[in-house]
Amino acid sequence: MSDVVSTQVQLAARPTGWPTADTFRTVQVAYGDLAPGQVRVVNEFVSVDPYMRGRMNDVRSYTPPYALGETMTGGAIGRVVESASDDVPVGAVVLHQFGWRDVVQEDAKGFQVVPEIPGAPLSLRLGVLGMTGLTAYVGLTAIAGLREGDTVFVSGAAGAVGTAVGQIARLLGASRVVGSAGTPEKVALLTEKYGYDAALNYKDGPVREQLRALTPDGVDVFFDNVGGDHLEAALDRMNDGGRLALCGAIAQYNDTSRTPGPDNLANVVTRGLTIQGFTLPSYLHLGAEFQSRMTEWFAAGKISWDETVVDGIENAPQAFLDMMRGANIGKMVVRV
Amino acid sequence: MSDVVSTQVQLAARPTGWPTADTFRTVQVAYGDLAPGQVRVVNEFVSVDPYMRGRMNDVRSYTPPYALGETMTGGAIGRVVESASDDVPVGAVVLHQFGWRDVVQEDAKGFQVVPEIPGAPLSLRLGVLGMTGLTAYVGLTAIAGLREGDTVFVSGAAGAVGTAVGQIARLLGASRVVGSAGTPEKVALLTEKYGYDAALNYKDGPVREQLRALTPDGVDVFFDNVGGDHLEAALDRMNDGGRLALCGAIAQYNDTSRTPGPDNLANVVTRGLTIQGFTLPSYLHLGAEFQSRMTEWFAAGKISWDETVVDGIENAPQAFLDMMRGANIGKMVVRV
Repeated sequence: MSDVVSTQVQLAARPTGWPTADTFRTVQVAYGDLAPGQVRVVNEFVSVDPYMRGRMNDVRSYTPPYALGETMTGGAIGRVVESASDDVPVGAVVLHQFGWRDVVQEDAKGFQVVPEIPGAPLSLRLGVLGMTGLTAYVGLTAIAGLREGDTVFVSGAAGAVGTAVGQIARLLGASRVVGSAGTPEKVALLTEKYGYDAALNYKDGPVREQLRALTPDGVDVFFDNVGGDHLEAALDRMNDGGRLALCGAIAQYNDTSRTPGPDNLANVVTRGLTIQGFTLPSYLHLGAEFQSRMTEWFAAGKISWDETVVDGIENAPQAFLDMMRGANIGKMVVRV
Repeated sequence: MSDVVSTQVQLAARPTGWPTADTFRTVQVAYGDLAPGQVRVVNEFVSVDPYMRGRMNDVRSYTPPYALGETMTGGAIGRVVESASDDVPVGAVVLHQFGWRDVVQEDAKGFQVVPEIPGAPLSLRLGVLGMTGLTAYVGLTAIAGLREGDTVFVSGAAGAVGTAVGQIARLLGASRVVGSAGTPEKVALLTEKYGYDAALNYKDGPVREQLRALTPDGVDVFFDNVGGDHLEAALDRMNDGGRLALCGAIAQYNDTSRTPGPDNLANVVTRGLTIQGFTLPSYLHLGAEFQSRMTEWFAAGKISWDETVVDGIENAPQAFLDMMRGANIGKMVVRV
């Protein structure tokens, strides 16, 4: 046993609009000897995710807001270096929610031991093989009720969730998958690597017009990570009985004024559409089903991925901001 | 057998914005002798409904648009005066969809013979005992999944559908029912006659603020006939997992420009809300279940109603316009 200093990133101030350098602060926390039942984990990767922006506001939501002076909690994966618990031995790879810190020392109950997956870097447990992949799977199945032959439109398609959505939709039998992204490079990746039949660059012109051209038979399922003009464009193109899974609205997370919604909600009535929002905590019971199917797909070589990796726990705030601005392809992670 | 002249109201021009006198024209149509299988029906009541406004536009919707020069089809009830069909005898009361005319002569297959209901004027077959009541029932059950103990908010609550929704919600176990209407008289009726616990006048101030005051425990089910500021107010107040049944958006039917949607759709994601639009043609299979329950409720004296009755088939256009402007309490019907 030994003392250790942990570098942690905390919420220093609640941002108005876009977070800035003043939003976060980096602190050193000293851990002493392990208490009975505790383990000490050295993180290898920590996750930065869009939902964290919502938790920086002091408003009611599905997860409680971060407290000021609280270390930014969230998904992370590391290895146990010291243990006072029989359940979580030294050397084990563990997933946890203690977030933005290089070392964490807590009761063993806060950690989930996971096997290493052949061919998969540990970081994929934070991405397509973890919560990100589960988010895509839940949205397509439990929320949107994807059926064979459906046409699927995905906004933010080159992001962590979007790259998973395209592949899973294809594996589940979608007949056409169309995505949106914000750079020519991303747009190319969608069709070349991620199973999309067509993709649009939302900076090239109105999404409404571009989507119409790419979906001659309309849209049955919309998986939305963006909101705003993407939701409006999708509502124009939905077929009767269409289903819209709202996973996020990154276009609006940093708005300081309220943004008007789509001007075509009347289509929800006349076309019998269902718009359903979801957040993952309500659907963790589908995790086992997802892991079983995803493990099979992954072992069969059917899953592609990209990661945008930023080094150094002290760079987590910048990684988070870059991700919110769309600088990432696939999952954005911080390598500790 | 004898010839007869039928007075019918046709669509003369597609309205832009609010329909006017030029939108409709009244014509005389001569019917000769019955062909084999035909019946002649003298209407007693014809229905004017909000969905008809949508059918006046030449756009894709769940029912085809009215053709120019086509008699305005829609719900009506009358009695058979001549018959060349064994299935539909003289004297029978029949429901049909031939709409705005005093006499109709068509194949017997277009008419549904219905029994008279003790204590119920025939017109109720167009209202709470018919499609209007079924709309309320479908929205609360199949769409919103009403559960015992739910708090329900209904917009346009003093209209045909709204007065049915309040009563059915209460009969199905809602713990609190709140409605909106546009006159003090209607607001009073909601609480005094229709089982509403509280009601607001949307002309008295922002719906958002009024609804907040009336729903201290939030809203579980929103039944929307209005759209616009009512939908926005409801989204503010929805509890986690809340369900919004969108039945109509009368606030926008005559808009000539597109109206922005609610500014708080982000709540759909964070609270896991489901917004589902519906139109009755997709849910007619629930008609038998509805008739069975509604007949029982009605016989037990548990159903109240109001009707706004306009006399004369030639006044159907004015009745329609008055209904669109909210002049009716309960169902608006034209007495032929």
